[in-house]
Amino acid sequence: MIGRLNHVAIAVPDLAKAVATYRDVLGARVDEPCDMPEFGVTVVFVRLPNTNVELLHPFGDASPLTRFLQRNPSGGMHHVCYEVEDIQDAVGRLREQGLEVLDPEPKIGAHGQPVVFLHPKGVGGVLVELEQASRYS
Amino acid sequence: MIGRLNHVAIAVPDLAKAVATYRDVLGARVDEPCDMPEFGVTVVFVRLPNTNVELLHPFGDASPLTRFLQRNPSGGMHHVCYEVEDIQDAVGRLREQGLEVLDPEPKIGAHGQPVVFLHPKGVGGVLVELEQASRYS
Repeated sequence: MIGRLNHVAIAVPDLAKAVATYRDVLGARVDEPCDMPEFGVTVVFVRLPNTNVELLHPFGDASPLTRFLQRNPSGGMHHVCYEVEDIQDAVGRLREQGLEVLDPEPKIGAHGQPVVFLHPKGVGGVLVELEQASRYS
Repeated sequence: MIGRLNHVAIAVPDLAKAVATYRDVLGARVDEPCDMPEFGVTVVFVRLPNTNVELLHPFGDASPLTRFLQRNPSGGMHHVCYEVEDIQDAVGRLREQGLEVLDPEPKIGAHGQPVVFLHPKGVGGVLVELEQASRYS
């Protein structure tokens, strides 16, 4: 069911510093920051040849990252995102097998594609995002 | 400097259960377990079309994962591994820029290639493995 790893998301307490590390020290290609108020995050994509790293920083007062960064003040890996062909089909099949899908309905994610999150308890302790693969990527 | 994301490593408390989740629920191709006594881990690679997920479980009494799983009893993301062309060159350049490389010398990793780990404090709070890219991959 799952296809490509779309991205690994890393929550960082200092976005400018993390951008500088990935761009200037590790020598990767880094996009401009993009605010996503509906998710409470600012995202920066680090473009690797085969996938992306998503640097995440809280946006606004009710960001879901605030608590994560309180528990992990130096930052840390937040979630992985796997692509699926059809998000509604994937959600249906996973719910049938007892996995807890956190979103009642898919939302539109950072790439303009529908996404849902799976509860970590069903998938090895890791927050998993599923994103419907773009037909144009 | 960094190239492809070679793998994302996930530490899991129950390897058989994690394998079953990735293989039977998420429908991914999963390799056989491989014990790596010199690293104190058993690894299982989940093969995605563009990269791998490495499921990690402690091997032996002195595994570096034991403490991680005590702090994260449900499991969690442990490290990311980026490929570099030349590991000695990468280590030299990163040390010059003040990053702490944890291994005095590269070791041979799960793919038979030299690897080192970087201290999380220099790279956004995330444990980073660098692996010299295979010329044959």
